[in-house]
Amino acid sequence: MTGYRPTPPETGWRKRLYTIIFEADTRAGRRFDQLLLIAIVASLLTVMLESVASIRASHGTLLFVLDWAFTLLFTAEYVVRLLCVPRPLRYARSLFGIIDLLSILPLYIGLVVPEGRFLTDIRILRLLRMFRVLNMPRYLDEARELRSAMLASRRKIMVFLFSVVLMVILLGTLMYVVEGEENGFTSIPVSIYWAVVTLTTVGFGDITPKTPLGQMLASVVMILGYGIIAVPTGIVTAEIARSTRVVGQRSATRLCPHCFTEGHDLDARYCKFCSGPLPDPVADEERTEEKPS
Amino acid sequence: MTGYRPTPPETGWRKRLYTIIFEADTRAGRRFDQLLLIAIVASLLTVMLESVASIRASHGTLLFVLDWAFTLLFTAEYVVRLLCVPRPLRYARSLFGIIDLLSILPLYIGLVVPEGRFLTDIRILRLLRMFRVLNMPRYLDEARELRSAMLASRRKIMVFLFSVVLMVILLGTLMYVVEGEENGFTSIPVSIYWAVVTLTTVGFGDITPKTPLGQMLASVVMILGYGIIAVPTGIVTAEIARSTRVVGQRSATRLCPHCFTEGHDLDARYCKFCSGPLPDPVADEERTEEKPS
Amino acid sequence: MTGYRPTPPETGWRKRLYTIIFEADTRAGRRFDQLLLIAIVASLLTVMLESVASIRASHGTLLFVLDWAFTLLFTAEYVVRLLCVPRPLRYARSLFGIIDLLSILPLYIGLVVPEGRFLTDIRILRLLRMFRVLNMPRYLDEARELRSAMLASRRKIMVFLFSVVLMVILLGTLMYVVEGEENGFTSIPVSIYWAVVTLTTVGFGDITPKTPLGQMLASVVMILGYGIIAVPTGIVTAEIARSTRVVGQRSATRLCPHCFTEGHDLDARYCKFCSGPLPDPVADEERTEEKPS
Amino acid sequence: MTGYRPTPPETGWRKRLYTIIFEADTRAGRRFDQLLLIAIVASLLTVMLESVASIRASHGTLLFVLDWAFTLLFTAEYVVRLLCVPRPLRYARSLFGIIDLLSILPLYIGLVVPEGRFLTDIRILRLLRMFRVLNMPRYLDEARELRSAMLASRRKIMVFLFSVVLMVILLGTLMYVVEGEENGFTSIPVSIYWAVVTLTTVGFGDITPKTPLGQMLASVVMILGYGIIAVPTGIVTAEIARSTRVVGQRSATRLCPHCFTEGHDLDARYCKFCSGPLPDPVADEERTEEKPS
Repeated sequence: MTGYRPTPPETGWRKRLYTIIFEADTRAGRRFDQLLLIAIVASLLTVMLESVASIRASHGTLLFVLDWAFTLLFTAEYVVRLLCVPRPLRYARSLFGIIDLLSILPLYIGLVVPEGRFLTDIRILRLLRMFRVLNMPRYLDEARELRSAMLASRRKIMVFLFSVVLMVILLGTLMYVVEGEENGFTSIPVSIYWAVVTLTTVGFGDITPKTPLGQMLASVVMILGYGIIAVPTGIVTAEIARSTRVVGQRSATRLCPHCFTEGHDLDARYCKFCSGPLPDPVADEERTEEKPS
Repeated sequence: MTGYRPTPPETGWRKRLYTIIFEADTRAGRRFDQLLLIAIVASLLTVMLESVASIRASHGTLLFVLDWAFTLLFTAEYVVRLLCVPRPLRYARSLFGIIDLLSILPLYIGLVVPEGRFLTDIRILRLLRMFRVLNMPRYLDEARELRSAMLASRRKIMVFLFSVVLMVILLGTLMYVVEGEENGFTSIPVSIYWAVVTLTTVGFGDITPKTPLGQMLASVVMILGYGIIAVPTGIVTAEIARSTRVVGQRSATRLCPHCFTEGHDLDARYCKFCSGPLPDPVADEERTEEKPS
Repeated sequence: MTGYRPTPPETGWRKRLYTIIFEADTRAGRRFDQLLLIAIVASLLTVMLESVASIRASHGTLLFVLDWAFTLLFTAEYVVRLLCVPRPLRYARSLFGIIDLLSILPLYIGLVVPEGRFLTDIRILRLLRMFRVLNMPRYLDEARELRSAMLASRRKIMVFLFSVVLMVILLGTLMYVVEGEENGFTSIPVSIYWAVVTLTTVGFGDITPKTPLGQMLASVVMILGYGIIAVPTGIVTAEIARSTRVVGQRSATRLCPHCFTEGHDLDARYCKFCSGPLPDPVADEERTEEKPS
Repeated sequence: MTGYRPTPPETGWRKRLYTIIFEADTRAGRRFDQLLLIAIVASLLTVMLESVASIRASHGTLLFVLDWAFTLLFTAEYVVRLLCVPRPLRYARSLFGIIDLLSILPLYIGLVVPEGRFLTDIRILRLLRMFRVLNMPRYLDEARELRSAMLASRRKIMVFLFSVVLMVILLGTLMYVVEGEENGFTSIPVSIYWAVVTLTTVGFGDITPKTPLGQMLASVVMILGYGIIAVPTGIVTAEIARSTRVVGQRSATRLCPHCFTEGHDLDARYCKFCSGPLPDPVADEERTEEKPS
């Protein structure tokens, strides 16, 4: 989410272009970003409609032209971005730089591998800019909070996923042995696929146990899956609840004027690091005003 | 939920009608509301039964007559409401006014577009009055608490839903490219539909991956969906837990005037730290009054 | 769960029988209860096996005899219970009394309505006695805690279920109009059944949307269902967390020696009701020892 | 997870082998463990590929040889482990000892019962060593925390599972009576299997209710299943949240010796209330040591 925000070039046409393309604060910049969003959504619709056989039959040529038009437009935009940025290489290697490149490549690849062109849908990731364009800092805050809650619990989630993978391989093999190839469990990988489908409570029904023993085993798998879904939920919930609690009682920005440490409790009277007296905390109302950065 | 409660008209038949139709406190008013509820449920049953082919074949005429009878009844009621209300326009534009109108329109629309008449089922929304009629303020309180917990977390939920939509479009496109039209993934929109079915762990099974690569990708989607369900749950749970904590039995701000400690229980008469007598807590009613509605 | 525990009869054979059948503390009583459990499980297996066509074909007569043997046994037991209990009517109307009666009725009913006999499975409810027999007070404690958490949140859950029913009826009707009878949505009740299958993320796949508009609507239903599952989870979690927390921070048994009120906070120095000084709380280790009652 | 770590033998070749095989701290030991992991994964792939009919047809002999090669390798390893361990019997009966044995047995069993050989997949459990090999103590910590949260709530989960089993048997029997054998509910055990599939929201769709009454009952089952998933989630979440709170960054018992306030942060050096210096908190290691293991 933390896209690349390069230091602006100093003078001339490059600076003007830079301001329009990379900054969202000027009027021209906002308009450019809005036009870009519309172009992205329109190009997404083009690709989607083109994949529908009946529409392709009737409006094929139009969609083909539109598709190339958008791709050439985005290619031009990518080149201009490279030109007006002070350090082009750093932009090219930034998250948004890579997304921008990926979103124009598929159609060119499609010249060689026909089906690859539908991957143009990857340009939906360009919509991530939306948050910046529509000026939604509070949404960014929430996204950041969610992400940090998930980062904080990533180790627990890895342990959980590892156990799920272990279980799924064991259960898949067991079902392969119990049900056998004649009941649709044609190989161990397919049986593992079935175990994933079942343990996650998706339950497509393309493969189902037929023997009594298989159904009994499947019942155990399902109740297991039903029960262990509690684990990731518990992990994430506890993490979100904690982050919410911490934000509640502590003031992330309360600063000690003596040792310049931050994050002092709202009820603290002295700095817990240097024992210097703390100034009174800012009242609640004022703080929320200051919050969005 | 906050229906329109207009100031009553001052005199005459309009006032009498108004009391009966809009107020639930008098005996006539209660009876009217109860009859209305029964009529709504009966009309719902009529519409449902009419949609069953075998019942329509045997009792078609009866149901047709009943259907129109209820609609004419509700139309009459709507007109009377408009007549006896002091400010008809404000009622017509209130939530319940719109629902009342919507619940009589479908049958008239059905005269033009035949299938539209089944939308009469929208009159089920009129049952929302039930809460008022059956005098269940505690249920309204709980509903309000739930709603406020969801409102408080709406930004996090929006961010979550936006990520789900991004994921579903990307995964759908990928599956379209991997599985192709011959395996049921006939177009990108259909593949996106499949991705939704899978990520939400619904798993109809009308479209399923056939190729090994597709099944592998599907397994990832399923485990992903299984894992990220934790996110909305975590968000809402943390919010409900917090609102519960605040509403809970302690008053975070109840202060002892002798030792200036805070957080005394609402039922405490003496400070638990210094044994000094506590002033009466602010009455419950007043406190909820003060809350921003 | 709180079965009927009548005051014992004073003398003679009725008292002896009463002790054996109703009390679990004497050796004969324990043995009786254990034999009863085995008989219940055996009779359940009999009914289940009897329903399997192939087993019924080969061992039909044996299972038939066993079935009647168990039913006559339980009938005799029911009669003896009625005889040796001081107040038979109160036992007959207690929870376990009703279950005991229900578990012998089906076979007799089956003489008239053949299929009714399989309802003998209701005698599985007799296994609820297990908790008492196997002497598992801690499990009873946990069950009680869970039940009280669910009771405390029953109003929120009712509001949630009411919203789900509203949604399901509206969405079902909408899908009936959108998809129509030719796509499997044969009537509004069937469409409502589909909406339940989809919203709860079960997704049988016996009925699936075929039209693009229907699939779009279904996607919304699924994401909705995926999201709102967070609500009951949030409600119950918050409730369980609270009940856990209360037990944690408060000492349910800390008693004021002056006014004999209980439940004082662990950090309280004076009684919050009568301002009398409180003795020091019992240390943590000792308290957990005392806890299991 | 707490594998067997025997006291090392004192001298000679046994000690050298012991160090390489059982210890992960020396360079030779690390290399041995890494090679072992690679061998395990390779042998797993062999078994899986062998189960795919088309691959077995083309590379059958190669896979057969590889399969036996890995099994002989692991057999040799098992024997060496037994030889160089001071107390072989204790190793043989430890968790990892049993897994090591189980992972070589299936192929030998397969000589008698052909299908049994695919159970070689059980050697995936040997991957549990990975945590030790890759030196991931933090992951082990998280795993331990998760496990202890689940252990602490095992009684509640048992009560929940018992209720689910009760419900599933009752609902399955009811559906058998309602739908009957002609609609796919061929016996009570099959109907119970259906009830599990439905209550856990898996919903394969291999068996679905056809009659209106059956669909109504199924709807109730689904909404029930949708609602009660909240229970295990609530249990585990509350438990994780509690364990997190205790482990959290504050020490509820850290006391200021100057003003006798409690609950100071573990990283605080001065009392935040009176600015007096705080004594060093009990070191993290020691505290976890003191916890009952």
